[in-house]
Amino acid sequence: MRITVLAGGVGGAKFLLGLRDHLAERWPDGDGGTTAEVDVVVNTGDDMWLAGLKVCPDLDSIMYALGGANDTERGWGRADETERVSAELTAYGIGWPWFTLGDLDLATHIARSSLLRDGLTLTEVTARLAERWNLGVRLLPMSDQPVETHVEITVDGKRRIVHFEEWWVKYRATVPAQRFIQVGLDKAVANPLAVRSLERADVILFAPSNPVVSIGTILELRGMRQALDRAGAPIAGVSPIIGGSAVRGMADQCLTAIGVETTAAAVAKHYGARGRGGVLDAWLIDGIDEPSARVIEAAGIRTSVVPLWMTDATTSAQLASDALDAAFAVPRR
Amino acid sequence: MRITVLAGGVGGAKFLLGLRDHLAERWPDGDGGTTAEVDVVVNTGDDMWLAGLKVCPDLDSIMYALGGANDTERGWGRADETERVSAELTAYGIGWPWFTLGDLDLATHIARSSLLRDGLTLTEVTARLAERWNLGVRLLPMSDQPVETHVEITVDGKRRIVHFEEWWVKYRATVPAQRFIQVGLDKAVANPLAVRSLERADVILFAPSNPVVSIGTILELRGMRQALDRAGAPIAGVSPIIGGSAVRGMADQCLTAIGVETTAAAVAKHYGARGRGGVLDAWLIDGIDEPSARVIEAAGIRTSVVPLWMTDATTSAQLASDALDAAFAVPRR
Repeated sequence: MRITVLAGGVGGAKFLLGLRDHLAERWPDGDGGTTAEVDVVVNTGDDMWLAGLKVCPDLDSIMYALGGANDTERGWGRADETERVSAELTAYGIGWPWFTLGDLDLATHIARSSLLRDGLTLTEVTARLAERWNLGVRLLPMSDQPVETHVEITVDGKRRIVHFEEWWVKYRATVPAQRFIQVGLDKAVANPLAVRSLERADVILFAPSNPVVSIGTILELRGMRQALDRAGAPIAGVSPIIGGSAVRGMADQCLTAIGVETTAAAVAKHYGARGRGGVLDAWLIDGIDEPSARVIEAAGIRTSVVPLWMTDATTSAQLASDALDAAFAVPRR
Repeated sequence: MRITVLAGGVGGAKFLLGLRDHLAERWPDGDGGTTAEVDVVVNTGDDMWLAGLKVCPDLDSIMYALGGANDTERGWGRADETERVSAELTAYGIGWPWFTLGDLDLATHIARSSLLRDGLTLTEVTARLAERWNLGVRLLPMSDQPVETHVEITVDGKRRIVHFEEWWVKYRATVPAQRFIQVGLDKAVANPLAVRSLERADVILFAPSNPVVSIGTILELRGMRQALDRAGAPIAGVSPIIGGSAVRGMADQCLTAIGVETTAAAVAKHYGARGRGGVLDAWLIDGIDEPSARVIEAAGIRTSVVPLWMTDATTSAQLASDALDAAFAVPRR
């Protein structure tokens, strides 16, 4: 069983934890793991160079979570984290004062930057860093070329273009985004390993990640939609919107910026039905959104109504199971 | 009063602390400091790139010591240091396992590397980093071009060339050095600010630093000896050798490699008398080496016999005072 998942950071990580648990039950390898092979195509649009170090928030969120080293209370970064280096950098006036880098987290960025400067691709670097952790999945950055999401905002009456993380972390997305600009997108291509993975997959899943700046960015890469079109596998997506609001992050601000309503149905229609120019065969929505199931079905997307809240390991694994079932229920193309 | 000091790391730092104390007494500015201006030309031959970060051991030793942030017990690095990042880097297999970078220290390297990559010279970066500390002196890297001291050694019957820090820290200099190679020396020139400082100085002092890989490297830079020749100021040096052994570090191994005896007299003669192709007007030796004073004088170098052990702030300040007095006793050229 070959599964390819498109994912952003924290929401993607939570879904993948559930998927890994579920696969160990559904296709056990007799050793606590699974015989299923999981590739995760991860958004790198939030990446940035900070104080000369390459930071990849989504790759790291997933790596730490699957490696069992994430801070589950805070919801991001490493557990047992400290910020000694960051305080020193601030004293030197280096970096962004509003963007705190933990000490343990910094080591990842130092290692990554060093390997990148040695000439390795981001894909190779990611594999190298992952060796240390026992992830049980293969992490594939969406592209080996840098794509940086920038945001056009108006601050004190002046138009400014800031890095996505500045908008997200410094402004907590309270300043309306007028527009997202994917710097580098014109020169980037989909990671060839991701393309091959999609083409060989038995199932393709969209994690409940931000449909604009996570999954959306992945889909915009040259070669990515074509790979999804060519793929023989069914594609099932999990709605990141429950009852009209984003489960985590600030997807509503992002959706508003691109003129999409913050509803499970609107996001489904934004992705679109496969065979009608879109990418979805199936869409999972929460019980609270059941009334909109008909609208989504009418748009040509098979709809499953299941509990979407991943409150613990059991519900997360159940959601992964439901997502796979929704995909398997799609008639072969 | 303008004083220019040539210095290596830890020994240089100790001497400079004494000098700063002494100057505050001898030429007080009425505000706890001094009206004297001190420039320190610092060896950068031990510098290295480690995991993509520029490490400057001697500049940092002096900066931390004069900034009051050094670890006085251990003798190097920052006080109250931790090694969380370093442990992580080891887990990723990045860096040199035998070279530990403290967390607080790492921040300096990250800041420095970031500023260097922004296009600042090492001189500019050093000034920028020093802003944070209240050093009371100006630190000038000996050159803005990289010069890396490498060492030829024989390990398991095989000839190897290793970075100086590998020989120094990993092998604790127990493997005999056959030869020192200054990688980059052919393309490097003396820091123009250091040259100007030497030319304008009222006094020039050599700290009791390693005469081979610290002061020796500084002197080998293109333009440095010429600047000393042109300088109108007297030059007084403090012997780093007391009673036939190095006060700190492993100067004896370095001296042996270049065929110089580990004695105060041999080092003086190695530097040579000014006007006879050398660089010293005056040389300070310890009481225990008094018998060799005549030999040094015979070589054309005025010799002062004073206590050289810097056991506390008082003795360090007294040594700085003695060094200045030795310089002032030199007849004007």
